[in-house]
Amino acid sequence: MGTLTGNEIIVGLLSLAVILGSAKILGEAFNRIKLPSLIGEIFAGILIGPTLLGRINPEFAQWLFPTGARIYVSIDMLALLGVILLLLVAGLEVDLSSVLKQGRSVMIFSLFSIAIPFSLGILLGYLFPELFGSADNRLAIMLFVGTALSITALPVIAKILMDLKLFQSDFGMLILSIAMINDLLGWIVFSVVIQVIHTGAVQPLMVAQTIGLTLAFSAAVLVVFRGIVHQTLPWIQAHTSYPGGVIAFVVVSGLFLSSLAEAIGMHAIFGAFMAGIAIGDTPHLREKTREIIDKFVNNIFSPLFFASIGMRIDFIRNFNPLLTLIIVGVVIAGKFAAAFAAGSLNRVDMKIRMSIGSGTIASGAMGIILGLVALQYGIINEDAFESIVIMAVVTTVLSAPLLKMFLKKEKTLNILDLIDRRGFIQDMKAITLRDAIRELADTASVKTGLQSDRIFYKVLEREMLMSTGMGFNIAFPHARLPEIDKPHLVVGISNTGIDFNAPDGLPAHLVFLILTPLSDQNMQIQILSELSNVFLNEKVRTETMNADSFIHFIAAIKSQYTG
Amino acid sequence: MGTLTGNEIIVGLLSLAVILGSAKILGEAFNRIKLPSLIGEIFAGILIGPTLLGRINPEFAQWLFPTGARIYVSIDMLALLGVILLLLVAGLEVDLSSVLKQGRSVMIFSLFSIAIPFSLGILLGYLFPELFGSADNRLAIMLFVGTALSITALPVIAKILMDLKLFQSDFGMLILSIAMINDLLGWIVFSVVIQVIHTGAVQPLMVAQTIGLTLAFSAAVLVVFRGIVHQTLPWIQAHTSYPGGVIAFVVVSGLFLSSLAEAIGMHAIFGAFMAGIAIGDTPHLREKTREIIDKFVNNIFSPLFFASIGMRIDFIRNFNPLLTLIIVGVVIAGKFAAAFAAGSLNRVDMKIRMSIGSGTIASGAMGIILGLVALQYGIINEDAFESIVIMAVVTTVLSAPLLKMFLKKEKTLNILDLIDRRGFIQDMKAITLRDAIRELADTASVKTGLQSDRIFYKVLEREMLMSTGMGFNIAFPHARLPEIDKPHLVVGISNTGIDFNAPDGLPAHLVFLILTPLSDQNMQIQILSELSNVFLNEKVRTETMNADSFIHFIAAIKSQYTG
Repeated sequence: MGTLTGNEIIVGLLSLAVILGSAKILGEAFNRIKLPSLIGEIFAGILIGPTLLGRINPEFAQWLFPTGARIYVSIDMLALLGVILLLLVAGLEVDLSSVLKQGRSVMIFSLFSIAIPFSLGILLGYLFPELFGSADNRLAIMLFVGTALSITALPVIAKILMDLKLFQSDFGMLILSIAMINDLLGWIVFSVVIQVIHTGAVQPLMVAQTIGLTLAFSAAVLVVFRGIVHQTLPWIQAHTSYPGGVIAFVVVSGLFLSSLAEAIGMHAIFGAFMAGIAIGDTPHLREKTREIIDKFVNNIFSPLFFASIGMRIDFIRNFNPLLTLIIVGVVIAGKFAAAFAAGSLNRVDMKIRMSIGSGTIASGAMGIILGLVALQYGIINEDAFESIVIMAVVTTVLSAPLLKMFLKKEKTLNILDLIDRRGFIQDMKAITLRDAIRELADTASVKTGLQSDRIFYKVLEREMLMSTGMGFNIAFPHARLPEIDKPHLVVGISNTGIDFNAPDGLPAHLVFLILTPLSDQNMQIQILSELSNVFLNEKVRTETMNADSFIHFIAAIKSQYTG
Repeated sequence: MGTLTGNEIIVGLLSLAVILGSAKILGEAFNRIKLPSLIGEIFAGILIGPTLLGRINPEFAQWLFPTGARIYVSIDMLALLGVILLLLVAGLEVDLSSVLKQGRSVMIFSLFSIAIPFSLGILLGYLFPELFGSADNRLAIMLFVGTALSITALPVIAKILMDLKLFQSDFGMLILSIAMINDLLGWIVFSVVIQVIHTGAVQPLMVAQTIGLTLAFSAAVLVVFRGIVHQTLPWIQAHTSYPGGVIAFVVVSGLFLSSLAEAIGMHAIFGAFMAGIAIGDTPHLREKTREIIDKFVNNIFSPLFFASIGMRIDFIRNFNPLLTLIIVGVVIAGKFAAAFAAGSLNRVDMKIRMSIGSGTIASGAMGIILGLVALQYGIINEDAFESIVIMAVVTTVLSAPLLKMFLKKEKTLNILDLIDRRGFIQDMKAITLRDAIRELADTASVKTGLQSDRIFYKVLEREMLMSTGMGFNIAFPHARLPEIDKPHLVVGISNTGIDFNAPDGLPAHLVFLILTPLSDQNMQIQILSELSNVFLNEKVRTETMNADSFIHFIAAIKSQYTG
């Protein structure tokens, strides 16, 4: 740090704070409207990048994000570390055996999802080379467009699946396996493209060498390195500070294998992903270690990376709508066609085909990196580069909502969705059971639109059958009503405590009134068991009882429960 | 990341992997010989830096750590982030109220620990300006040497206290408060020195401005920002992903306030420290959030920083032994004199005075940064710079062992110290209580040098009085023996289970033979209660019972217990 000037320190730290801060704010905001946070993070990059901030106040933008200045290299490096650590974490979550189990269908889907868009890209480059660059480079353009349109963005897909909580499902593993093999093939093809550009022709020997190196690397990491991890991790866990030693081991391995992957001609992130898979496969890696790495990477490093994508270019200047439309159209058509064709071979149903199509369209960072290299080698022009970047962003942004729409998985119950300010009584006045139910029914009446008396008698009727005091200072009075079509929950906190005839004799300080539709038998049981689960935790119980506002109440639940 | 070349990616990632990997390996190794890990981390930097690797193979060293190349700026930036996040974490742990409680004595210690070394430094610079640079700069040299010798390294002290687990003790807070105020005063003095260099004279108005800004910043962060955090943190916890939103908030605040601190003329790390104190003071920050930030920072970021100190210069070339000796001597003499003088005013005992002296000698990174700035301004020459750096390293390395020696806190019992391979029976053959005690006694005989029969009968005698089967599949047979002067523990795992007449009727799968000196009444009880504590945890119990090697056994204990 001694070589940094004071001004570099000021600007470097401030720009990191602005990038990370805006990315997290928009990421969380998008999360709340049920979109994956990475879209918000990219969007933050667009706002603070050349597209908006650079347009409004170019001097300030150049001062804060001095592209070209040497301090900016470290922002780039942090973004690179962001994607590398993201892929490392994604790799940790991959269940290798379930990937291998799906062997055949994964291969078919992967091959199709490369082959069809690749062919379409080749055709596009062959027919309209001048859209991308000089017609003299037709062969290189053809290969580039083919690769750019067929490559799938592993980090984006991994993050989308994590954001949608689909990562560890069978379907998540299927998409991820497809993306992984697609990536592997894509980078092999890309290395060949680079060689073609250099030498002007396809050289079989070098192609064979590239393929050989990639396969050898993958095998070495997944077999040899995995074996070493399996043997050494218990030793590291036993003989170093816990969990620090293991955390450092995971990160150092990821960095080292990334560097090695880049050195032998693949992209660095591929090495990190492989390292993650190899380490994640050992049962010796503890949940706590995973969680610390995961939370820090997903909340600090990966937002930096996704914001940096949005900051990469000015999304308005030099915008070529026709080219962009063509490229986006071809990618989407190609990926969906591939998913359909492969799906009919594998005999999977329509919903899965559509989902795989949606999951594989995201080209994200891969497309951008590829485009950048092609631009540097003079294969494509700036218009084409921008179209590729926009295509990458558009497909990334489309992928998650499409995936969500087609999958629309059975929504699991989240009690936080049921608790709102209107159904929250901060300080109950009632001191008897009867008055308490009356007080809750009054509040429920406002929420449901039903008469308070109606609720009161139904709940009291149930209460007479058997007490709903559960012990541990909690009571769950409840009723099923034909008039409502969704569950309603009213929460009351009583400081004095209300006697609900609990088995442990303790008065209830937390009272939950649960109203569910008569038609849905399971709903009531689900809510009851979910509430019991949450409030069996003593910490949650104590903190919620003492919550002095609705926000504190929710915060206390959230500390232990994510739904 | 788009602007990084392939070679920059390879070298950047590899050098990070090497720095972090070597720092963690040596840090853990030093930890095992009971020295703070930061010394190992600095030592790693010396090995891979210009002192060793650069000497053995300069081409390779320059390739791997291309100082001067733009990619190296990002290594510097990561080291800066390392120290900033370290101070942020240290700040989180500071208990503001206990600092304020110590108000008066802290002020006296701080003033003395600045004033005495500062005066000695002024004298040194006045008498021998040519040791440091040109005699023409006498005034600037005097001020610089005074400041460099009096400034205390907050990050180093924070890390030493964390490593020695003294951080949250009253004494830890006292030292930290002294270092904090020392730092505050030190940076004010340093800003004045810079002004003197620029203008050639002391300008009262600018001095007043610097002092005013520093105090205003501290007050703004500790009052206004702290209030904001207190109000908003529950909202953030309730409305963002947990714990991700809070983690990002903490880091972004730290980055932003660091940048601000640097911008108004203090050093960035001071802003991070203040941010940490302000955030750590709210009771709304949860333990889990703290832990994730703490573990990641202490194991990934801070090793990068400490290794980078060791890599800063060649510790052999241009080594000026006389100057170094003088500087080191003056610092140590000055700090100890200050601690003695202030201690006698405060009427604290000798042990505490010596400990405060030891704790405050570490000049660490502050000294280096100061030296570097002075070198850049041409106040001091390279010899003097190197002596300052060596002084910083030497005092840092000395500080922890001295502190440990003088404090020598009552060693709390750590059962991991009692468990070793020689006293571990992987798979007990015995199936009766008698045979089990015989088998354990045989093993204990080898460890203690006592006759097996002697141990057997003493333990059996005790067992006859009252069963030592504790339930939960655990038994603690034990005896006190006059022949031994320290406790011995033998651990046996029985797959078949041995009936120890436990209250729950379950056979013992884990049997601990505890032998303690007859003279020490408490020892046995301490070990028993510590073992119960550890093995009351069901996870530890299950995992240790199923451990298939000594290493797995230790790892399972360590996952939940740190001693």
